[in-house]
Amino acid sequence: MSRTEPARGMRDFLPIDVRRRAYVRGVIAQVYEKYGFEPLETPAVENIKTLLGKYGEAGNQLIFKILKRGEHEATGKADLALRYDLTVPLARVVAEHGARLPRLFKRYQIQPVWRADRPARGRFREFYQCDIDAIGSTSPVVESELCMVVGDVILQLGFSDFKIRLNHREILRTLLVNAGIDSGQHGEVLITLDKLERLGRDGVTEELSKRGVLGNSLSQLIDWLVPDSGSHDLDWLQGQMSEIDEGGHAAFHNLRKILELTNQSIVGSHLRFDPSLARGLSYYTGAIMEINVPDLTGSIGGGGRYDDLLGMFSNKRVPACGFSLGLERILVVMSEREMFPSKLIKSPADLMVCVFDEGNISHAFVLASLLRKSGLRVMVYPEMDKIGKQIKYASAVGIPCIAILGTDEISRGEVTVKELATGRQTVFLKEDVSVGVKEILGEYRG
Amino acid sequence: MSRTEPARGMRDFLPIDVRRRAYVRGVIAQVYEKYGFEPLETPAVENIKTLLGKYGEAGNQLIFKILKRGEHEATGKADLALRYDLTVPLARVVAEHGARLPRLFKRYQIQPVWRADRPARGRFREFYQCDIDAIGSTSPVVESELCMVVGDVILQLGFSDFKIRLNHREILRTLLVNAGIDSGQHGEVLITLDKLERLGRDGVTEELSKRGVLGNSLSQLIDWLVPDSGSHDLDWLQGQMSEIDEGGHAAFHNLRKILELTNQSIVGSHLRFDPSLARGLSYYTGAIMEINVPDLTGSIGGGGRYDDLLGMFSNKRVPACGFSLGLERILVVMSEREMFPSKLIKSPADLMVCVFDEGNISHAFVLASLLRKSGLRVMVYPEMDKIGKQIKYASAVGIPCIAILGTDEISRGEVTVKELATGRQTVFLKEDVSVGVKEILGEYRG
Repeated sequence: MSRTEPARGMRDFLPIDVRRRAYVRGVIAQVYEKYGFEPLETPAVENIKTLLGKYGEAGNQLIFKILKRGEHEATGKADLALRYDLTVPLARVVAEHGARLPRLFKRYQIQPVWRADRPARGRFREFYQCDIDAIGSTSPVVESELCMVVGDVILQLGFSDFKIRLNHREILRTLLVNAGIDSGQHGEVLITLDKLERLGRDGVTEELSKRGVLGNSLSQLIDWLVPDSGSHDLDWLQGQMSEIDEGGHAAFHNLRKILELTNQSIVGSHLRFDPSLARGLSYYTGAIMEINVPDLTGSIGGGGRYDDLLGMFSNKRVPACGFSLGLERILVVMSEREMFPSKLIKSPADLMVCVFDEGNISHAFVLASLLRKSGLRVMVYPEMDKIGKQIKYASAVGIPCIAILGTDEISRGEVTVKELATGRQTVFLKEDVSVGVKEILGEYRG
Repeated sequence: MSRTEPARGMRDFLPIDVRRRAYVRGVIAQVYEKYGFEPLETPAVENIKTLLGKYGEAGNQLIFKILKRGEHEATGKADLALRYDLTVPLARVVAEHGARLPRLFKRYQIQPVWRADRPARGRFREFYQCDIDAIGSTSPVVESELCMVVGDVILQLGFSDFKIRLNHREILRTLLVNAGIDSGQHGEVLITLDKLERLGRDGVTEELSKRGVLGNSLSQLIDWLVPDSGSHDLDWLQGQMSEIDEGGHAAFHNLRKILELTNQSIVGSHLRFDPSLARGLSYYTGAIMEINVPDLTGSIGGGGRYDDLLGMFSNKRVPACGFSLGLERILVVMSEREMFPSKLIKSPADLMVCVFDEGNISHAFVLASLLRKSGLRVMVYPEMDKIGKQIKYASAVGIPCIAILGTDEISRGEVTVKELATGRQTVFLKEDVSVGVKEILGEYRG
């Protein structure tokens, strides 16, 4: 480890990276807001008791724990921990501030989380989650809107080839029951199913048989979940079930409703029922969703209904449904596909003012101030270097224009603007220079 | 401690808070960018060796340290720590990415830092710093622009009654030398001087005499730094010095230059030389600045030149000058003075679509989508509650308008929009509703 590297699995973001990340976060926030979601922020640090035991034993191991301070430091004990996701803090906020929150609370939260996971391509120890949750309603309007808002985000970012897969925990349960699988085995079957993308149909079949799912149960289940070609539709699958209890009926009805409500919307053509979608987390109680693009293994986001989780701190049942978009995975695909808009800023300034004589610096400041007031980003080169050196710097950092402010120009009340790409020079009266520079920049920005 | 409170000294930010904070951060970033500064982000977590020993012994105690993980957890040792400020990470970035950074690098960084300080009014354990630093030049253009950009930020936020105090470490040294104070005592004299606002003139005099500054030295120093009334100007003070070395001369020249360069600028009338300004941090080597507003003890930001610090990881001398604005202190004053613009969003949506019949939800989605496309923030009420209950909810969360979409309206291709403040109802054709709602909202926004 070099002394100057960031900590393992974490990253420094230089200006171009920050601008790209801010752009994507901005699009996500803006679309979230259009659907009536409001921003929430919680501290990076939580009391350790708030987090421990909420993510299973594997999760506990990945939590960054903070040493007690002062005289207690020597005990080696931890009393605080870094935020591991945005859902447990939401549950805490709902319990703590419940009275100040609306009965139906639609919140979004775009903040980093930290996990001591083994770093890998696209997997970092500090990464952003972009969560959206609707709290207080069990209506399928909520699931439908979540699919729409997430689809809208992805469309706004320029993706058109995404799929949103939809399933329901109770449909999965109904399928397992009808395949004759013992309820005690359901959990591990779902865990195996979650590996479908990685293991493939044969791999999942093999792992399920190792887990003791055999004979008719296995072939029946595989045929329902992962048919030889295509995917079964909701009606056909429901027709195959010889035994459906109340929860199962409600689940089929619920998904049918969600598909119907979103059919005419922007995500209508992207959304499809997929009975093989399992979603790893055990806390889902209803519909589950996942969004995928073809060139990324794994999803760029997922979510579902979890009516029993948010009450963990309040002992009240709080219905909720949410979706989490993974900023880092979205950025990976957008970088590979070069999807960032060309209008994204790539230089420290629109224009750099060059001065060659200390006595003229005040004039440079007046000019810079004039240009800034008109909205331009302006840098004043601080050293009295030769023009060649100043131009070389401006070119190197991508500044498109320089303003030359020599003693002659100042005495005539003029400014010479030079476009570095073409070398073209234009002389403006000082009062016309803002408009002139904007016109020049407009040409470059197309 | 309640189980649902945030960790000690940390805060949850509900939507109204997030919007206010985002507004202020946005203004700061926008003004920083206008002056040619570029954004940088570093991880919240640093290797502990990067931070330890950089902030003195008192600072070491305030660093949140992160336990090693896995088998090493039981050792109680820490290998990582939370970011304590934005300057040491900048030094690390300059050493690590130097080759990718421009020769003159103007960066800003707006991120939280964490200190295990005793929480108090306006002092938190997680708080944002808004730093701006110009690296690679020793020109007074840099100091002048820093004063201008920070003043511009504060003006843009709506402050007009701020003062920027300016001093120079080498002028302070010259004054101490001329007052006959031994160079070994300079450090502790500066520490006492830094308490001037809290202790007052008499308190500082008393503490200095306790530290062994006596007789003529003391009265001379106090008269130079804290005259009975007003403040001495640069020329007068320079004239009082019987002995000025090269560094002292350069310092007087430097401050005179900064005052001259900024004189005609937006901060001209706010900036003044104040020989009593000391700035606690020992790493400053040149000009130092601090920005104050009358109704806040302590500053809302400060900075200065520190040519010897950034090389800590590279062993190269990297000239730098920076300024840090304290977001939390700015927010405290802005809240107390009610300075937030009335245009700041206060509700989850501009309009809520009400539906009373499950069969009409698809129509509500189509209407919502239409309104969102025109830029409006629209919520669809998810439950089929009675109109009174829906209106009560919209009023409670501050949504100004509702759209009523009953079966009659749908059959006629119409929408009824009701303004909740006045009860006024307007019937629009579906194709006119976006424009109509925007006009209505325009009236409210004034």
